[in-house]
Amino acid sequence: MIKVGIVGGTGYTGVELLRLLARHPEVELKAITSRKEAGMPVADMFPNLRGRVGLAFSTPEEAGLETCDVVFFATPNGVAMQQTRALLDAGVKVIDLAADFRIKDVAEWQKWYKMEHACPDLVDEAVYGLPEINRDKIKAARLIANPGCYPTAVQLGFLPLLEAGVAETGTLIADAKSGVSGAGRKAETHILFAEAADNFKAYAVGGHRHWPEIKQGLEIFAGGPVGFTFVPHLTPLIRGIHATLYARVSADVDLQALYEKRYTDEAFVDVMPAGACPETRSVRGANVCRIAVHRQQGSDMVIVLSVIDNLVKGAAGQAVQNMNILFGLAEDTALSDVGMLP
Amino acid sequence: MIKVGIVGGTGYTGVELLRLLARHPEVELKAITSRKEAGMPVADMFPNLRGRVGLAFSTPEEAGLETCDVVFFATPNGVAMQQTRALLDAGVKVIDLAADFRIKDVAEWQKWYKMEHACPDLVDEAVYGLPEINRDKIKAARLIANPGCYPTAVQLGFLPLLEAGVAETGTLIADAKSGVSGAGRKAETHILFAEAADNFKAYAVGGHRHWPEIKQGLEIFAGGPVGFTFVPHLTPLIRGIHATLYARVSADVDLQALYEKRYTDEAFVDVMPAGACPETRSVRGANVCRIAVHRQQGSDMVIVLSVIDNLVKGAAGQAVQNMNILFGLAEDTALSDVGMLP
Amino acid sequence: MIKVGIVGGTGYTGVELLRLLARHPEVELKAITSRKEAGMPVADMFPNLRGRVGLAFSTPEEAGLETCDVVFFATPNGVAMQQTRALLDAGVKVIDLAADFRIKDVAEWQKWYKMEHACPDLVDEAVYGLPEINRDKIKAARLIANPGCYPTAVQLGFLPLLEAGVAETGTLIADAKSGVSGAGRKAETHILFAEAADNFKAYAVGGHRHWPEIKQGLEIFAGGPVGFTFVPHLTPLIRGIHATLYARVSADVDLQALYEKRYTDEAFVDVMPAGACPETRSVRGANVCRIAVHRQQGSDMVIVLSVIDNLVKGAAGQAVQNMNILFGLAEDTALSDVGMLP
Amino acid sequence: MIKVGIVGGTGYTGVELLRLLARHPEVELKAITSRKEAGMPVADMFPNLRGRVGLAFSTPEEAGLETCDVVFFATPNGVAMQQTRALLDAGVKVIDLAADFRIKDVAEWQKWYKMEHACPDLVDEAVYGLPEINRDKIKAARLIANPGCYPTAVQLGFLPLLEAGVAETGTLIADAKSGVSGAGRKAETHILFAEAADNFKAYAVGGHRHWPEIKQGLEIFAGGPVGFTFVPHLTPLIRGIHATLYARVSADVDLQALYEKRYTDEAFVDVMPAGACPETRSVRGANVCRIAVHRQQGSDMVIVLSVIDNLVKGAAGQAVQNMNILFGLAEDTALSDVGMLP
Repeated sequence: MIKVGIVGGTGYTGVELLRLLARHPEVELKAITSRKEAGMPVADMFPNLRGRVGLAFSTPEEAGLETCDVVFFATPNGVAMQQTRALLDAGVKVIDLAADFRIKDVAEWQKWYKMEHACPDLVDEAVYGLPEINRDKIKAARLIANPGCYPTAVQLGFLPLLEAGVAETGTLIADAKSGVSGAGRKAETHILFAEAADNFKAYAVGGHRHWPEIKQGLEIFAGGPVGFTFVPHLTPLIRGIHATLYARVSADVDLQALYEKRYTDEAFVDVMPAGACPETRSVRGANVCRIAVHRQQGSDMVIVLSVIDNLVKGAAGQAVQNMNILFGLAEDTALSDVGMLP
Repeated sequence: MIKVGIVGGTGYTGVELLRLLARHPEVELKAITSRKEAGMPVADMFPNLRGRVGLAFSTPEEAGLETCDVVFFATPNGVAMQQTRALLDAGVKVIDLAADFRIKDVAEWQKWYKMEHACPDLVDEAVYGLPEINRDKIKAARLIANPGCYPTAVQLGFLPLLEAGVAETGTLIADAKSGVSGAGRKAETHILFAEAADNFKAYAVGGHRHWPEIKQGLEIFAGGPVGFTFVPHLTPLIRGIHATLYARVSADVDLQALYEKRYTDEAFVDVMPAGACPETRSVRGANVCRIAVHRQQGSDMVIVLSVIDNLVKGAAGQAVQNMNILFGLAEDTALSDVGMLP
Repeated sequence: MIKVGIVGGTGYTGVELLRLLARHPEVELKAITSRKEAGMPVADMFPNLRGRVGLAFSTPEEAGLETCDVVFFATPNGVAMQQTRALLDAGVKVIDLAADFRIKDVAEWQKWYKMEHACPDLVDEAVYGLPEINRDKIKAARLIANPGCYPTAVQLGFLPLLEAGVAETGTLIADAKSGVSGAGRKAETHILFAEAADNFKAYAVGGHRHWPEIKQGLEIFAGGPVGFTFVPHLTPLIRGIHATLYARVSADVDLQALYEKRYTDEAFVDVMPAGACPETRSVRGANVCRIAVHRQQGSDMVIVLSVIDNLVKGAAGQAVQNMNILFGLAEDTALSDVGMLP
Repeated sequence: MIKVGIVGGTGYTGVELLRLLARHPEVELKAITSRKEAGMPVADMFPNLRGRVGLAFSTPEEAGLETCDVVFFATPNGVAMQQTRALLDAGVKVIDLAADFRIKDVAEWQKWYKMEHACPDLVDEAVYGLPEINRDKIKAARLIANPGCYPTAVQLGFLPLLEAGVAETGTLIADAKSGVSGAGRKAETHILFAEAADNFKAYAVGGHRHWPEIKQGLEIFAGGPVGFTFVPHLTPLIRGIHATLYARVSADVDLQALYEKRYTDEAFVDVMPAGACPETRSVRGANVCRIAVHRQQGSDMVIVLSVIDNLVKGAAGQAVQNMNILFGLAEDTALSDVGMLP
């Protein structure tokens, strides 16, 4: 059994990790920390876990994280980088669901996240946990930077196009829409029900922290610099991201075949038939990215539609997928949930 | 022109007052206070008011409330009672949308609201602003206690039954459902979109502050003590209250006629035809309470369905209605909005 | 492997059966019928099943249902009763998710369902599939009448009270609220998004088909006639039922202990701690009924709150639970999903 | 008083016309037709109109439309073109809220709408009712083609950019999101609550009927051919359209000033301050298009955000605005509703 610790279990990625790991046959949950809620049974805060998770929140000090095999950080940005080195030194694998280790250019990271990085050398070592790109590196990693939600949907959507070198790389656009759980379980006015329900808006149009993360990935796929415009929107879903991607393709290429071939061996990426439009609810609760490729008549504009559940393939599910790879388990262990429709 | 001031303009009852008053032909908005947001144009916080309300928030000190004709308190409980006497002394009428002056039994009020009352004598003087009961008293009032949202829906629903003395008064039940805006515009976790959407729950089953307010009214209607059970629920609406009322009626009485007769002269209470079920959306944005009366076959149980928009007939609309009465205007001035359906 | 057929796979109970059975380790899906969609791969209609269910819809004639071990009817009322005898004669077990076999009084059934019953003798034989009451009978059954959604929530909520004989049985009330999927996947105007979203209403106040089903159960529990008032409401949830139950209890009884004791061995009924309020989302996707018992101060009124997912414990999940019992499997096989929160 | 008739009053644009016209001081509602519902009081179908609209639906034959001053068609495509000539001949003005007269190229119209046009000569005569472009022509028109919802939001968003000639016209993109009421009040499965709630998807990516309508407008603004990509999405709002527009601008132009200047005299277009993001709820129920212009750092990509209420500025409100212009009334008569927030 893999001994698992979770740091920061009171947010949405935390409770989602618990929902998935509660049924993982190879996992023993050892500790879930929350300084603020220490002592409270986890199932008192999240009653869906009643009868399934018996643990109480503990303080980081008493949690015994260094005796775990792997520790997930489901914390705000900037927490994992303070505690990772000690855990690695104790032989514990670390999977960070926050952004601390995602961007290789530390100066860039510091600009966007407005803090000094505590361990730039570990950024170098960290493996970006997008299995469809980095599966082999993940197997051998000590430290995994779990991708952001938007970056997962957008990168998987652009990947075949850029790898194949058939898109104009100067004017890539991602118009992305996220459910409200993507903003976290924070007491903030703008994500109240009475503010976000029956409402749609763009936000962070001037610059969003996922922009440099996505751009970094796209440039790796393209093998050079890209021009990339990213506009995120808030839509009244609990869960779900829908990314609509625009790129110009001059070559006369069979895009459907290109996408199907690229993902033929990927259990968690589903290329839909030509003409289809993926719905976010088809992946609700499931660790799947569903993609469709379109080209409007007589136009060189390609439109890629990519959907994920931001808390599953966009966070906790992908983290469990990374853990499964890391420990040599079947990659879909505890990740076989079918999307909840309706 | 009636010079109007609003204390506490950053909540939902505040912005709803502004929405209604912005089109009131006899009103001049003089000041909207918010210590925290002083200096910010109101329309920057509430962009629906762009081009319609030019005022900025001001501090209470600079607002010049004592030069107004009427001041609305759209504040948390306990604020109005601190400032009301000075305004009354300056000849200003006061309409409190909070609970400070609603319950005549000050000891009971203090028990439920967990604070000492600052001016018990003004509680005595205050008129409970339910026009369908107290229209004449409202005309002559200096200080109006605007009813709560649940109390408006429940009292108007039970009123004809209790006035007519045909219901068993020992076992009255109100099973009430409220939209989330009823909880206010407060940064609290349990009313986040991702918590309250696609979710339904009861709350405060052990005791809700509107219970004594409703009971006080029901006992006035019934002319004696009543037994009253109240269970509020949170439902994923932005606006709307639906109260389902249960009472036993032994007499063989024509309830439909009873209700129609009682409300025949009331512009803002609509008794629906026999068999109908009012929908909350039929009163969305409108200052209307819509009621239907049902009796299941072969049963002595009467079921009354009563819906309002909690922010309009349940708060700001009723407050404007009270102001109209107070200043001798047509009662429906600025209150002619048709419910927004769909 | 249990060979399973599903008649009527295009509705919400059908796709939910598929979601659950797709991961059932002891089940082999043999056929899903839909005369209208025959030939279409099931996953084309329900893309959440892509890669998980390879079957196409077939006509009833070509489905080979008589070679199955068990057939689920996820059909409109009146279909199962036409086909059940032939299946039973062929040695196939039948689980009907519709209402054909739920009500023992055939005349009463015919009055509410407005059709003649095709096989009254089979109504006699059918076992009402509420495992918490009829587990032993289910084990030995050939034909199971899977309970309705409201009836499951309401009966499990009242059961301990009535079995213990501590409630006044003449004035039982169930104020029930259902998500919109309870109305089925039918092209009808009143359940359109733009009609049902941000809206709350009662319906069928004059009489709902689940009333006689519930009453039948309550009278069995109480051992005699009961007076029962039932008011269903439509609330903007996709899934979920919340039943708020009212009963008068004169005896001085420890209700919390009573409920905990009654359900202590039931894996799918969770009695919450005193003072709690169950949320529908805590059972979203899970085969659980979560219950809390309340008593307001100084009142003899007991309030029971009972929540289920109408498609799981209220339909497809309970049907799978019945199948597991019928075939001697662990009762929770394929039913271990944790409620999806958020 | 202007005598008004409405053909097809049972859909969302019909009831919205009624909501607005019920308070129009210069309008007398003469007839609302619905062959199917003839005889039923309008307020029985739409209870928000109880006490406000006394009319019953009538058949077209008995409606006396030819005695009206103006007739609105709130009908499916293809109806207005059959009846318009007779009305015009009788001296009645016609405002068509459907698409019959929007596209000048009749062959193109026939291709997209898959029917033969009944009166191509009237297409020529019809004035496209976007007041911000065609106010003078509207004043003199007999027949007005009221713009589509997407076309209103997208054209007003691109207008200043294209008129000023500062955008690259070959690669214009509109990524548009619509609330579900945009699909009409039709009994169709895909717009059921349980299908469309908590779900987001693109649709008609291969080609949407509003594409040629928008393109026609953009080419007029630009004075030449444009390349235009349009991707519509369905988002779980009742009302609201959010268009996110992408264009490349090489010139060093002050876009904020450009937009503010273009719309400075337009009462129903609100250019927000630099950096703002308009929310659909800020225009809920209001006849306003709210626009913001953004440019990401170091990029030549301009992003325009444009929101409307699809039933108001995108349909019924704009139709009333056109009527006001047509009859020489103040353009904002009956159009002063403030957006309903929350």
